[in-house]
Amino acid sequence: MPSAAISQHVAEFQSYKTDLFQKDFLLTWEHPAEEIKAILTLAETFKRLHHEGYSYRTFDTGLAISIFRDNSTRTRFSFASAASALGLSLADLDEQKSQIAHGETVRETANMISFLTEVIGIRDDMFLGEGNSYMREVGAALTDGTAKGVLHRRPSIVNLQCDIDHPTQSLADLAWLKKHFGGLSELEGKKIAMTWAYSPSYGKPLSVPQGIIGLMTRFGMNVSLAYPEGYGLIPEVVELAQKQAKESGGSFETVNSMEDAFQDADIVYPKSWAPFHVMQKRTELLKTSDKDGLKALEKECLANNARFMNWECDRAKMNITRAGKALYMHCLPADITGISCKAGEVSADVFEEYRIPTYHEASYKPFIISALMFLARVENPGAKLSAIVNRAKSLSL
Amino acid sequence: MPSAAISQHVAEFQSYKTDLFQKDFLLTWEHPAEEIKAILTLAETFKRLHHEGYSYRTFDTGLAISIFRDNSTRTRFSFASAASALGLSLADLDEQKSQIAHGETVRETANMISFLTEVIGIRDDMFLGEGNSYMREVGAALTDGTAKGVLHRRPSIVNLQCDIDHPTQSLADLAWLKKHFGGLSELEGKKIAMTWAYSPSYGKPLSVPQGIIGLMTRFGMNVSLAYPEGYGLIPEVVELAQKQAKESGGSFETVNSMEDAFQDADIVYPKSWAPFHVMQKRTELLKTSDKDGLKALEKECLANNARFMNWECDRAKMNITRAGKALYMHCLPADITGISCKAGEVSADVFEEYRIPTYHEASYKPFIISALMFLARVENPGAKLSAIVNRAKSLSL
Amino acid sequence: MPSAAISQHVAEFQSYKTDLFQKDFLLTWEHPAEEIKAILTLAETFKRLHHEGYSYRTFDTGLAISIFRDNSTRTRFSFASAASALGLSLADLDEQKSQIAHGETVRETANMISFLTEVIGIRDDMFLGEGNSYMREVGAALTDGTAKGVLHRRPSIVNLQCDIDHPTQSLADLAWLKKHFGGLSELEGKKIAMTWAYSPSYGKPLSVPQGIIGLMTRFGMNVSLAYPEGYGLIPEVVELAQKQAKESGGSFETVNSMEDAFQDADIVYPKSWAPFHVMQKRTELLKTSDKDGLKALEKECLANNARFMNWECDRAKMNITRAGKALYMHCLPADITGISCKAGEVSADVFEEYRIPTYHEASYKPFIISALMFLARVENPGAKLSAIVNRAKSLSL
Repeated sequence: MPSAAISQHVAEFQSYKTDLFQKDFLLTWEHPAEEIKAILTLAETFKRLHHEGYSYRTFDTGLAISIFRDNSTRTRFSFASAASALGLSLADLDEQKSQIAHGETVRETANMISFLTEVIGIRDDMFLGEGNSYMREVGAALTDGTAKGVLHRRPSIVNLQCDIDHPTQSLADLAWLKKHFGGLSELEGKKIAMTWAYSPSYGKPLSVPQGIIGLMTRFGMNVSLAYPEGYGLIPEVVELAQKQAKESGGSFETVNSMEDAFQDADIVYPKSWAPFHVMQKRTELLKTSDKDGLKALEKECLANNARFMNWECDRAKMNITRAGKALYMHCLPADITGISCKAGEVSADVFEEYRIPTYHEASYKPFIISALMFLARVENPGAKLSAIVNRAKSLSL
Repeated sequence: MPSAAISQHVAEFQSYKTDLFQKDFLLTWEHPAEEIKAILTLAETFKRLHHEGYSYRTFDTGLAISIFRDNSTRTRFSFASAASALGLSLADLDEQKSQIAHGETVRETANMISFLTEVIGIRDDMFLGEGNSYMREVGAALTDGTAKGVLHRRPSIVNLQCDIDHPTQSLADLAWLKKHFGGLSELEGKKIAMTWAYSPSYGKPLSVPQGIIGLMTRFGMNVSLAYPEGYGLIPEVVELAQKQAKESGGSFETVNSMEDAFQDADIVYPKSWAPFHVMQKRTELLKTSDKDGLKALEKECLANNARFMNWECDRAKMNITRAGKALYMHCLPADITGISCKAGEVSADVFEEYRIPTYHEASYKPFIISALMFLARVENPGAKLSAIVNRAKSLSL
Repeated sequence: MPSAAISQHVAEFQSYKTDLFQKDFLLTWEHPAEEIKAILTLAETFKRLHHEGYSYRTFDTGLAISIFRDNSTRTRFSFASAASALGLSLADLDEQKSQIAHGETVRETANMISFLTEVIGIRDDMFLGEGNSYMREVGAALTDGTAKGVLHRRPSIVNLQCDIDHPTQSLADLAWLKKHFGGLSELEGKKIAMTWAYSPSYGKPLSVPQGIIGLMTRFGMNVSLAYPEGYGLIPEVVELAQKQAKESGGSFETVNSMEDAFQDADIVYPKSWAPFHVMQKRTELLKTSDKDGLKALEKECLANNARFMNWECDRAKMNITRAGKALYMHCLPADITGISCKAGEVSADVFEEYRIPTYHEASYKPFIISALMFLARVENPGAKLSAIVNRAKSLSL
């Protein structure tokens, strides 16, 4: 029988109201804190069920479609794992093998792939101002197709990373923080340093830092965002973070020094990204296929990056954090100095010290995606979860 | 409980005899009208079961293999959806990643992938005289492998589009017409215009128009095939259409004007294709990898196409149809003037008026493929369908 | 009900002790003969269950991941079939679409894809000294991740061909020999000729001949390894074969003539491979991306190969075998003279005579992989197999 801990999770989950049925999950801040708590609790329930060897299969048949417009390992396998765990068949839309190049429109494709589809996961993070819009365009087409009776039920979109947010990452990060510190309320007053870090590559999306400041400011944390001058994020997300921090009893600051952010931090999240204005320029150049312009921009950016090679998370900087023992986080893969590059985001000794914790951090993602799928497809999730726990079906038949 | 409408479908389905068990489905005209009716009724039953939230899963385990030798969105996802709905695991044979380039023969590959396989779906529509032959070569190998005891049961091939027919498309089209007009008998005496239309591309397969005239002439319809001089179809299929029309009490004509075909039509299906003799020449050039020859042929064809840019389905031509309200059909994606190209098969206003109906048309394909798989793999389909309806298993467990 | 033959298989299986739970299967010779016998018996049980129409599904949900670093048809579909038969969802790790190029380490990737994974199948056979090491590196990472609590259960690796062994091939070959000759004990004293054969290509892995001599020497067979001077295998595997032959009451010899090996042979396995020292040199050149060096090596090798074009398995050589009727084996695809190449490993008449037997040989692979997965994931395989047979669930629900 599932353990008592699972029964407690179920009871807690049932105390939350959610309104996600047949809807999309695109930005964490569009959802009330109660829903975020429900997602975390459900993900923990699924994780423990899997740990104890029980299946949380929810569907007899149906499709979960993934659309990856950028490379992925963690998120790809998290989505595949979640689909399998829920009993859905995975189908990947490879735009190279489809007729999309044939002049098919987004609204048409959205309907054509959806006749027996429950969930569509989309990663589209390369172009500023585009990824999230694309997801909403797909969503509008699904709503229209359902209203017109083309689709029997409206499939739900899960944002697997866009230009604005990376909700399955930030929710997995939050689930890990909740576990590590012993509860969401333990996060109040904790300082998290979300800081830029040096990388020898360029053009990394802004969605991870934006996702972190857009989520962690809602739980009473003191969020310190640090980056070299000129490496700012989308202004609207920064404003939102400020507003949310005020409301939650936490704080939000922007500083231009890694050391300032690390000072007395409980958690550090050093991660490279491209400056907002560079991503804007790059998006324009990519649209016009301006290869010379792109080369010039890359050269300029790498030269600029190189001015900030000291933005590396090393032991000396870690020593500034609370008792020298802040929790190091990363969405992985990290650029590790001397391992994956000559000079990178983090020194080899710091990364090795926290390597296993970053794996734990990542381990929540398949269960977060499972939870998002479940809440989007099950009309009475509390009752259904209870039924799943009570049936106590083994993973191995 | 499934609705009374479903019970009526089951009763109707059980009144038809079928002989598809462990056989292939390659050309609609190889199958008696009774089997076509059984397929339509079964597809409708599955569609309604899905609409009402019931699973029609038929297998505990097993493979459905797809082999796409040309790009596909609709058919690819329809096949994936059907496989999932029946409980089969989808495995795509990507010829690039296999050892086929290594000199493996078709008959060998056919057996090697089939040890636990139920269904093999094949799209091979690029080369005239080859696609359908390839499917028969695979089929012969499966028959041989089964006779020799290599395969425990002979898997069934479903033609997902060849050089001659596109049966899952034409059957989905017929299912939509049956639904739209209220029954197969309502189609008797209706005029359908299957006409060529202008497209800025070249080399589109002939299988859609051939599939339409090869199927619709069997149900008492008046089929008008229209194309500019020189854009004829495979002569044998045209002869077959004439013969079938006579037998079914309908009619078949070939005209060289879109307007003549549209006159008083109840249904119009304007769609570009490459001329038969061009496809023949192209197939030869492709075989010899004659790049210069291919370029010259493309140039010549596009120039020739350009003489027929007025073959566009616009509002003025639609006004010629019965009460100006013929049902517009297309297998999608359509070349829409001003949307997906400068000048194409259909004007933007006509397409927009009929956009949702074309989506309904497409929505039948996953259920048609489900029906073909079911009939090919289940020995007593009437009894099994009855059992599936009676068990009333929810899609969501 | 499953047949009496199945009950006998179950009883035999239950008489064997195995110790494969949550372990990897990398080299046949790392496992005691009793485990090999258990694997063969279990594969036969699964094969017969499938033949009689019964499902041996073992999992409700879960992932089976495949990593193919070389092309594959047979093994790819065998793995996909086994995953489906056991109820696992297949997920292919395409290194091109992952962030592995991004500088992700093996130990990290191994954990990141494994949170809900039961089995990881790996083919990595191109580089001498690397494939097997890579599998062990993945395995060590999985052990570490499990010990650290990152993974709930340690997934198991199945070697789908490395630089040293091709265990799913050699076990399928042995299962076929057991079937063909009527039992493992019937193989004692039989002569098998594992010989090099001419091929117009170069760079074929050594793992098939090594797998054969590494397995067949354990069952009292007289193994004759033949190759032209300079085409030797990895010395350690040859030593192992000698030692095993002595222990099992069989014999092992190395000769430099196809005719010598064929003399009075009961079984012949003529198959091309690249010389050991060439594979070593090639691995170095590939590591340094030395294109000119690779071209020169290929040219030299093909010229050298051409000296041995008479190493073809033709009717004249078959006549030297026992009563001219030795069983011809091949892992497929074979280089067939006049069919897949001008001059190759086997003449067209000999291949055609034995074509169906080679298909039977191949037909065991999906069931061997099923058996390896089952033994690696089920704690009490004897009891579970009994439960599966007793439940007598049809493949078709």
